[in-house]
Amino acid sequence: MAANEHEEHAGRWRVEPGTELRLADIDTASKAGAPGDKEATTLAVQDLVGQLSDWQNRLWAEGSQSILLVLQAMDAGGKDGTIRQVFTGVNPQGVRVASFKAPTADELAHDFLWRVHQHAPAHGEMGVFNRSHYEDVLIVRVNELVPEPVWRARYQQIRDFEQILTASGTAVVKVFLHISPEEQAERLQARLDDPTKRWKFAAADLDVRKHWDAYQAAYEEAIRETSTADAPWYVIPADRKWYRNWAVLQVLLDVLHRLDPQFPPEEPGLEDLTVV
Amino acid sequence: MAANEHEEHAGRWRVEPGTELRLADIDTASKAGAPGDKEATTLAVQDLVGQLSDWQNRLWAEGSQSILLVLQAMDAGGKDGTIRQVFTGVNPQGVRVASFKAPTADELAHDFLWRVHQHAPAHGEMGVFNRSHYEDVLIVRVNELVPEPVWRARYQQIRDFEQILTASGTAVVKVFLHISPEEQAERLQARLDDPTKRWKFAAADLDVRKHWDAYQAAYEEAIRETSTADAPWYVIPADRKWYRNWAVLQVLLDVLHRLDPQFPPEEPGLEDLTVV
Repeated sequence: MAANEHEEHAGRWRVEPGTELRLADIDTASKAGAPGDKEATTLAVQDLVGQLSDWQNRLWAEGSQSILLVLQAMDAGGKDGTIRQVFTGVNPQGVRVASFKAPTADELAHDFLWRVHQHAPAHGEMGVFNRSHYEDVLIVRVNELVPEPVWRARYQQIRDFEQILTASGTAVVKVFLHISPEEQAERLQARLDDPTKRWKFAAADLDVRKHWDAYQAAYEEAIRETSTADAPWYVIPADRKWYRNWAVLQVLLDVLHRLDPQFPPEEPGLEDLTVV
Repeated sequence: MAANEHEEHAGRWRVEPGTELRLADIDTASKAGAPGDKEATTLAVQDLVGQLSDWQNRLWAEGSQSILLVLQAMDAGGKDGTIRQVFTGVNPQGVRVASFKAPTADELAHDFLWRVHQHAPAHGEMGVFNRSHYEDVLIVRVNELVPEPVWRARYQQIRDFEQILTASGTAVVKVFLHISPEEQAERLQARLDDPTKRWKFAAADLDVRKHWDAYQAAYEEAIRETSTADAPWYVIPADRKWYRNWAVLQVLLDVLHRLDPQFPPEEPGLEDLTVV
């Protein structure tokens, strides 16, 4: 594993297996490690997006490894914004975003990993899950949709499933965008106050907000139980959108440096060929 | 149908149903209608990409209509470059690119539309087909992979299939990137001469090139037979990449103006709500 300039940053947010995680101890407004304040960091983000685009090209050309970015957050935590701001600028041919909503009847008639497996990235692709199989140990737990022994057994199932993806060349990267309840209130209120964004608001969001502590506890346990050496979680302070974008890019670039995709070898005998 | 500034441009390349099409009569290096030469047009493209991004946001928010862009071209015709340059800058969450290569055994065990149907864009999405079901009346015809009555019957099947998509709210837009054989030779040679691009080159590309005239004839007939009022073909002069990008954007923006997606209505009673 070659050292790279993103490694130190990524390590800052990585949840090492076996460590105790307390979300309340992590400052959601942190700017730790950022190259400067909003303006300087936004400038750095532009450069990092360019790097991500170059790596995507190599990953695609190589065609034997892939990345799966799992994005989880509370409502208004910034999942959509992260996808837009981090991946806009990357060739959409190699990026595949899957959004998971409430499961359909057909999906519920299968094991909980069935529907997400279908959206696993192919070799050469960057896959992004906007919400994921983790909802099956989060909302399912908080709303008591299945008995505790069922959701509790899923931690092991998730570890096994992600190990299967890893073994076939997919780097599984899991990011929790960590915001404060005050920041969430501000963002939801902003949606309400802006007529062009009000359609995004559902009154049901406020019900979920009432269960804030239960969700934080569920996240804490899920992250602790499923952060492995091969498929680690990263808890990224996300009250400041510019810091969040910069941090997610650092994590992705660290992973890409380690995957180190290479352009494939050419067919032999092409050097002196002339097209007629 | 409201008039829009892109309508006149799009009409320039649209193959009206029932008209005779002769590809040889269309100048592959045309600059007709462009706002200027390379520099000025590239600047205009940046602005059009921004417009496409805004429309994508509305289409996604509305969630009841979609676009399917079918891209076809000879090898090195610019399909990959068009996708990268037109859609990079658009939120990847709403763009879904599907590339179709030689069919698998499972795909061959189904009708020829089965595999493409699975990649039809959902409501709110922009779908892009990099190659498509049209290969089943192109390469399949030139290489005599099925008997003539079989591929000939596919014209009607394609019209019917695309009508089904149209009826469910998908605007089907088909673009043939039209290059000259000289331009193709230059581009293939450039791939050979650049060690970082040589991996893209397959010696088999030269075999396809030998059948240039047969392919042009197959394209001419396929386009004539399947350009309908609801799912028209556009033949876009594509020797100049900057003109090609500008033209594809004009076509997409014309279609989006006509779809005219609207932000959905908000839930009633949200105006005076305060988030606590």
